Amino acid sequence: MARIVTFGEALLRLGTPGFERFDQARSFDLEIGGAELNTAVGLVRLGHEAAWISRLPDHPLGRRVHSFVRSHGIDDRHILFGDGRQGLYFLETGAAPRASSIIYDRADSATARLKPGDFDWPAIFAGIDWFHVTGITAALSSNAAEAVKDAILAARNANARISIDLNYRAKLWSPEQAGRTMSHVIKDCDVLFASENDAKLLFGIDGDFAEMAKQFSARFGVKAVATTRREATSLWRDRLHAIGWQNGQTIETTAMDVEVVDRIGSGDAFAAGVIDGLLADDFAAGLHTGLAFAAIKHSIRGDLPLAAKDEVQSLLRGDGLRIRR
Amino acid sequence: MARIVTFGEALLRLGTPGFERFDQARSFDLEIGGAELNTAVGLVRLGHEAAWISRLPDHPLGRRVHSFVRSHGIDDRHILFGDGRQGLYFLETGAAPRASSIIYDRADSATARLKPGDFDWPAIFAGIDWFHVTGITAALSSNAAEAVKDAILAARNANARISIDLNYRAKLWSPEQAGRTMSHVIKDCDVLFASENDAKLLFGIDGDFAEMAKQFSARFGVKAVATTRREATSLWRDRLHAIGWQNGQTIETTAMDVEVVDRIGSGDAFAAGVIDGLLADDFAAGLHTGLAFAAIKHSIRGDLPLAAKDEVQSLLRGDGLRIRR
Amino acid sequence: MARIVTFGEALLRLGTPGFERFDQARSFDLEIGGAELNTAVGLVRLGHEAAWISRLPDHPLGRRVHSFVRSHGIDDRHILFGDGRQGLYFLETGAAPRASSIIYDRADSATARLKPGDFDWPAIFAGIDWFHVTGITAALSSNAAEAVKDAILAARNANARISIDLNYRAKLWSPEQAGRTMSHVIKDCDVLFASENDAKLLFGIDGDFAEMAKQFSARFGVKAVATTRREATSLWRDRLHAIGWQNGQTIETTAMDVEVVDRIGSGDAFAAGVIDGLLADDFAAGLHTGLAFAAIKHSIRGDLPLAAKDEVQSLLRGDGLRIRR
Amino acid sequence: MARIVTFGEALLRLGTPGFERFDQARSFDLEIGGAELNTAVGLVRLGHEAAWISRLPDHPLGRRVHSFVRSHGIDDRHILFGDGRQGLYFLETGAAPRASSIIYDRADSATARLKPGDFDWPAIFAGIDWFHVTGITAALSSNAAEAVKDAILAARNANARISIDLNYRAKLWSPEQAGRTMSHVIKDCDVLFASENDAKLLFGIDGDFAEMAKQFSARFGVKAVATTRREATSLWRDRLHAIGWQNGQTIETTAMDVEVVDRIGSGDAFAAGVIDGLLADDFAAGLHTGLAFAAIKHSIRGDLPLAAKDEVQSLLRGDGLRIRR
Amino acid sequence: MARIVTFGEALLRLGTPGFERFDQARSFDLEIGGAELNTAVGLVRLGHEAAWISRLPDHPLGRRVHSFVRSHGIDDRHILFGDGRQGLYFLETGAAPRASSIIYDRADSATARLKPGDFDWPAIFAGIDWFHVTGITAALSSNAAEAVKDAILAARNANARISIDLNYRAKLWSPEQAGRTMSHVIKDCDVLFASENDAKLLFGIDGDFAEMAKQFSARFGVKAVATTRREATSLWRDRLHAIGWQNGQTIETTAMDVEVVDRIGSGDAFAAGVIDGLLADDFAAGLHTGLAFAAIKHSIRGDLPLAAKDEVQSLLRGDGLRIRR
Amino acid sequence: MARIVTFGEALLRLGTPGFERFDQARSFDLEIGGAELNTAVGLVRLGHEAAWISRLPDHPLGRRVHSFVRSHGIDDRHILFGDGRQGLYFLETGAAPRASSIIYDRADSATARLKPGDFDWPAIFAGIDWFHVTGITAALSSNAAEAVKDAILAARNANARISIDLNYRAKLWSPEQAGRTMSHVIKDCDVLFASENDAKLLFGIDGDFAEMAKQFSARFGVKAVATTRREATSLWRDRLHAIGWQNGQTIETTAMDVEVVDRIGSGDAFAAGVIDGLLADDFAAGLHTGLAFAAIKHSIRGDLPLAAKDEVQSLLRGDGLRIRR
Repeated sequence: MARIVTFGEALLRLGTPGFERFDQARSFDLEIGGAELNTAVGLVRLGHEAAWISRLPDHPLGRRVHSFVRSHGIDDRHILFGDGRQGLYFLETGAAPRASSIIYDRADSATARLKPGDFDWPAIFAGIDWFHVTGITAALSSNAAEAVKDAILAARNANARISIDLNYRAKLWSPEQAGRTMSHVIKDCDVLFASENDAKLLFGIDGDFAEMAKQFSARFGVKAVATTRREATSLWRDRLHAIGWQNGQTIETTAMDVEVVDRIGSGDAFAAGVIDGLLADDFAAGLHTGLAFAAIKHSIRGDLPLAAKDEVQSLLRGDGLRIRR
Repeated sequence: MARIVTFGEALLRLGTPGFERFDQARSFDLEIGGAELNTAVGLVRLGHEAAWISRLPDHPLGRRVHSFVRSHGIDDRHILFGDGRQGLYFLETGAAPRASSIIYDRADSATARLKPGDFDWPAIFAGIDWFHVTGITAALSSNAAEAVKDAILAARNANARISIDLNYRAKLWSPEQAGRTMSHVIKDCDVLFASENDAKLLFGIDGDFAEMAKQFSARFGVKAVATTRREATSLWRDRLHAIGWQNGQTIETTAMDVEVVDRIGSGDAFAAGVIDGLLADDFAAGLHTGLAFAAIKHSIRGDLPLAAKDEVQSLLRGDGLRIRR
Repeated sequence: MARIVTFGEALLRLGTPGFERFDQARSFDLEIGGAELNTAVGLVRLGHEAAWISRLPDHPLGRRVHSFVRSHGIDDRHILFGDGRQGLYFLETGAAPRASSIIYDRADSATARLKPGDFDWPAIFAGIDWFHVTGITAALSSNAAEAVKDAILAARNANARISIDLNYRAKLWSPEQAGRTMSHVIKDCDVLFASENDAKLLFGIDGDFAEMAKQFSARFGVKAVATTRREATSLWRDRLHAIGWQNGQTIETTAMDVEVVDRIGSGDAFAAGVIDGLLADDFAAGLHTGLAFAAIKHSIRGDLPLAAKDEVQSLLRGDGLRIRR
Repeated sequence: MARIVTFGEALLRLGTPGFERFDQARSFDLEIGGAELNTAVGLVRLGHEAAWISRLPDHPLGRRVHSFVRSHGIDDRHILFGDGRQGLYFLETGAAPRASSIIYDRADSATARLKPGDFDWPAIFAGIDWFHVTGITAALSSNAAEAVKDAILAARNANARISIDLNYRAKLWSPEQAGRTMSHVIKDCDVLFASENDAKLLFGIDGDFAEMAKQFSARFGVKAVATTRREATSLWRDRLHAIGWQNGQTIETTAMDVEVVDRIGSGDAFAAGVIDGLLADDFAAGLHTGLAFAAIKHSIRGDLPLAAKDEVQSLLRGDGLRIRR
Repeated sequence: MARIVTFGEALLRLGTPGFERFDQARSFDLEIGGAELNTAVGLVRLGHEAAWISRLPDHPLGRRVHSFVRSHGIDDRHILFGDGRQGLYFLETGAAPRASSIIYDRADSATARLKPGDFDWPAIFAGIDWFHVTGITAALSSNAAEAVKDAILAARNANARISIDLNYRAKLWSPEQAGRTMSHVIKDCDVLFASENDAKLLFGIDGDFAEMAKQFSARFGVKAVATTRREATSLWRDRLHAIGWQNGQTIETTAMDVEVVDRIGSGDAFAAGVIDGLLADDFAAGLHTGLAFAAIKHSIRGDLPLAAKDEVQSLLRGDGLRIRR
Repeated sequence: MARIVTFGEALLRLGTPGFERFDQARSFDLEIGGAELNTAVGLVRLGHEAAWISRLPDHPLGRRVHSFVRSHGIDDRHILFGDGRQGLYFLETGAAPRASSIIYDRADSATARLKPGDFDWPAIFAGIDWFHVTGITAALSSNAAEAVKDAILAARNANARISIDLNYRAKLWSPEQAGRTMSHVIKDCDVLFASENDAKLLFGIDGDFAEMAKQFSARFGVKAVATTRREATSLWRDRLHAIGWQNGQTIETTAMDVEVVDRIGSGDAFAAGVIDGLLADDFAAGLHTGLAFAAIKHSIRGDLPLAAKDEVQSLLRGDGLRIRR
């Protein structure tokens, strides 16, 4: 069991029921998630302790998020409350050939309004083994970007290892802004989660996965790179595999078939698995755990990987699909 | 049948089901409303033609509002679409002794972002009999306040009569700002909807209803004043009556008992009834129609007075509560 | 335990959820009921055996009704299946001052299409103690009216006692038609359920309840008359009492307070209680049982009095409102 | 942007939730649709103006349909209100190997009761570019069939182009009746939507699609023929392509994979796309637009193709299934 | 039409809606089922008469089960009511790669508490053609095992044929206990439903299906053996076929594709079909009917095969998946 | 802020939606509660720290309870997991004159199966200010009764003050058993929550509240006694006041009107308020806080008093029922 810190924003997800279009909406189902929160919950499920650092609005919607976070066994001691909105996103779930659609409504949120000095980073990182953050947090505001850099510095000082998920969001910042900021953030990180697409867009890195990983290593000192690939010819069924690079070696897992209840958050579940592997110094195991965790996430409504460690292990052992009685 | 224009914002209302607290929310029921839209729909139900002027975000949530507005037979030709958020509010419905609670989330909305010159007021008011607006629209932004003033000028030029609902919202502006702006807006209006509370807060007007009305008449040339009173010793049952002042005369109706499904929008239904009366130059009839319309509104989920004219008339005739087969 | 036969139609009730208006409907809750079916189920709950005679459409909606009927322990052996529609009604539930509203859609139903000779009445009434029918069945079609008369004849031949509920429905026939047909139907019946209103409308009978009852006795040989009264100043709370006349004596019960979940079918529950009393030759007990049953019915969604005999007895004993654990 | 008129009936669709059988129904989800209404809404979505001609019952269910129609931006000026029922259909959604099932309950509807002379066809068609109707309208009653013929005559006189969807419904009329009436209706139409099955059944036309189209051209002067084909080995996934004939040429599109939320109304969406193409004198484009529109329709609950024009274009461009953020 | 008796327990099934995990549960959907009840309902659907023998708790949950049983046309005359709990199971429905999961909560149920002598077996079996029971009933308690043996003896004495479904449940008893008890129960039965897995586990029988069947015949006098096979590479789609052995012959059907709404109870539907065939002395027909019935069951929510006989026949005829109108 | 420990069981509450009877149930709404858990949550809401001691089943339903407990900010460090069932109760909510009804299904639960020595009481009570438990915990099993006694001993040794709620449950033990055990438990406690009814039943104490309190003081050294009284003439509205005794003085509060969404857990909310007062050595303030908390609880679905401290204070200040914006 390791101790992990993640840092980010949580959004209320307001999803139309079933496959209803926004045009037809009469109600919204509420889920709560955020990339770093999702990964923190995943790590708790895998047997670790995780704290989630954030700033929530000091009104009932912020407290709704707080209670949700607590319910999943997350260490909530460093969460701040203050002014600003509760970030939202609206979700319409598609069916082929109609893609799913998200409307973000997160500008000016309590998290985006955080100020340098809000968090006592050295205290937060005391005794911590790992720090995880994504590009989304850095994109929220310039203050948030500063806070991410401060957190990384503090994490390094505390000898915590660091993982970064690029997670580029075009609605939040331009590729140039993202590239500039993230080139500082990802420096020397222990593992970077990145797609070839984003690598190209933010850093002008060309080539296949192995080439991309080498470039990240060469230019930024990144120690490992990982991602998942989906074959997505459908929205209800998919086929995933993971690919990773470490020390010049590329590892590619076999693929897993998934029936898709909800694909949101699967990348964050994958990150949790990879971190779990790296905490045990076994990158290949991390890729497999991450893939299995991501695969199971597809079967779960909401952003969180609400699966137990033994379910992940059972999937890796090849246990079948019979009803568990 | 008269032709009416109203001008304002519509919000998505995200209400917890039943009496659930925000703490317990897992879904939100969607309703759509806004003071001036509610009154416009009321006037359509009473047999008039009504156009609603607004500016909606050019994305699926704005189009959701648009389709809702159209479904109620509102003239939508002058609605604009552009940037900005779709304004929201979150609603938790109470039960005594726990009051209902609203969290507004409307800052920076598409309507608040409207610009002077967005609307061609002279064209809008061609052939129009009545203009209705509330203090909420003026409170959205300084541009919106300017637009309200422009609209009133154009309405007067078109010889349309004018009604104003003060509708002070402390979350949107200070009493001073509101008093300053609204003193221009209400000038010479044909009827003002105002409570003693707001009169005191915004204009320092003291005294009972009749005294307040006299002051509005003396200071601002207001031709009539109207409001409803509730005896609210409970959230599930209430007892309402209406009171109005015109030409130095105060009229007070008898009271009506209501079982409260949803009290939001009852003031806007009242306004529709009063305007209907004044369009026929019968203020007393307007007060009774308005009260009956407001009473029925309490029985209807959502912000709109979805009742037919003959239901209002039937209530005024004293028809009872037997099932209509 | 006695053996009872009732004869009538069952309708699908398509009700808007909560207090939604038809304007707002996005779904309908399904209930199933019909005056004579409701009374039959009430009698089964009070410990008797009851058969319900009807004709249902031979398609899945008719079979849905059939399965519903069976679930309540009703003897279904004499139910016929054939052509014609499944009768419906649409229900919108009100809140004061908005009354509830029903749209019937029952024309040309399988029951209305029944033909003389469809039922083997002598076989049906073999060994039967009581027959109950309402004016609704007679109003469905002229064939149905004939069948009601045939059934009454057969019941008399089998020495079964007979109860009739006038239940005048203006949508189905005129007062003249109803008066003409029902004057045959109610002849010499053991108990007639009738309101002063309907007595006046159909038979020109004036006067208070006692006077009305005397007239029914004098003109039609009716042996007893019973009805309930409600004080309905509200749709959510009511206060009921029962009143009956037998052998020149008028009996009036004390009143019961009810919180109204669903008032439909309460008259049919009352009928079941009165019949239960008369089966034990105790009219006064029947009035009390009927009132208690009707009162409990108000607390139950749907048309049926889904209460146990001991609940009725407990209410009559004056047991309070504490949670039963 | 063209101006289109369609003419037909709208039904309330009462569907069991999920995959519930009628046996299990406890509620029904309400949708509203009708072949010509669906196509009109599709044409509005594709950027045109469309009026829908119909006759609705003058009670709250008819007004519910009216408000639904208005919400979709349909020109409602020519809709009549009168006596008759609101037509219904009950829907049970299947899963392989259990087919979906529909129970129609539309006899004696307000639309079926329309009378010759109800509509002022010349006024309706003033300035109109296109008229669309299906065989269902003609099948409702002999008056309705006459009205269809009158409408076609008026459309021709107004130089509007005409499309007909055969849409044979065995529950409404016999193949002979349908063949006799429709042979007048389809005469010289600009495009006919027909399957080989119906062509054989109604007109004794044998052969493959091209052969059938040639016969329609030769015998009835039909200018183009179009249809979709599905490979339906499953109820949850399907694969569609379109096929069309014009001027002796047969065009067959490539196929599209769909995940089926609701297949009802997909033919009407196809018709809207084809009409859109023909309005621009590009039949091939119409087939592709129609296919894409029909494909997207499968992903949308209800009878209507609630997709935007740019979604159709995006699908034709080959944009993938990634979440749109 | 034959007369059948089955004997077993019914459980309340408390299932999370959709694919919700137990972690996320806020409500449970209620279904009711039990292996022998499911088969009895299947036999009623196939046109037979069936009685279900059980012991239910004498409180509202037991009565809820009773009313459910009655609604499906089951003969309920021999159901007893007494002390003990109402057995439950909690169900979470999976999506690949997450299997579905069941938590049983049935210990100490009213059925498990039945006592020898509770049932008058000779009276129950008078005039009965077939008796069906599964290993689950025998596993409930030692008294229940005795009752199963008594029932089989009485069935034989009444010349009823007998079918047994092994249905081994590891949560209820050990393989040794099960093997010991069931070796008495299955003796000389007319058909045994058993998988190779359970045969190996309980009786140490090795080999393929034919070998297993031969052993059952040789060691226990079993006259026929049948089972279904699924190819389950997914939870939402499956492919089933049936396999049977009788008189030394193995029969294997072709396969059927299913879209899985709910797979629970499909084995019991299969049993009903096989029994139906054997009642007509046509084992091969029974295997096909059973397979079709089981296939359709997959499309139906809940434990029961709520399909009509003509739907089974239509599937066997190869009717397709078009909407039935 | 004080530190509190409570000890007890939590049950899943499976409630029929709305006012559905068990007869009608098709789904159950899930709530989670337990007397001591409810009070602990109340104390957290009032600003204290609270740990809840319990033993949960080591399966997903036990983990569902765990996550629920955590979400409310309860210290969960001492919760044990082990064998045994998850206790349940089924709830049907009434409307006058039909009382609500509960079916307990909690026998043999994980909590009832706790063993002496399971908890390290001295460690649990280190630094604790207050201990609260009810008679329900003592009634679960003899081991549980022993554990309660051990806990009280440890609490005393730690100088924690102690509150006991008699909470007699006739389904769990006899008055004699309860009286015998509880006479040890309540000894010298700082406050006892007891009704005159239970005092009479368990200890033979007669007389009014003051007399009862004096007897508890005299016989058991109880330092204060408190209870609430309801005027319950209805299930939807009630009127409550509190009454307390300390040092020979009886204090009776004024009454509060409540609209009843859910009355379950209101006594536990009252206990939290009284303890809050006593922690500040102000019994009278505690009675008022407790009453206000209990009153608000009636407006909240579920067993928990999910209200903020400032809502309680606002009610005590007499703030009205206006919507909070």
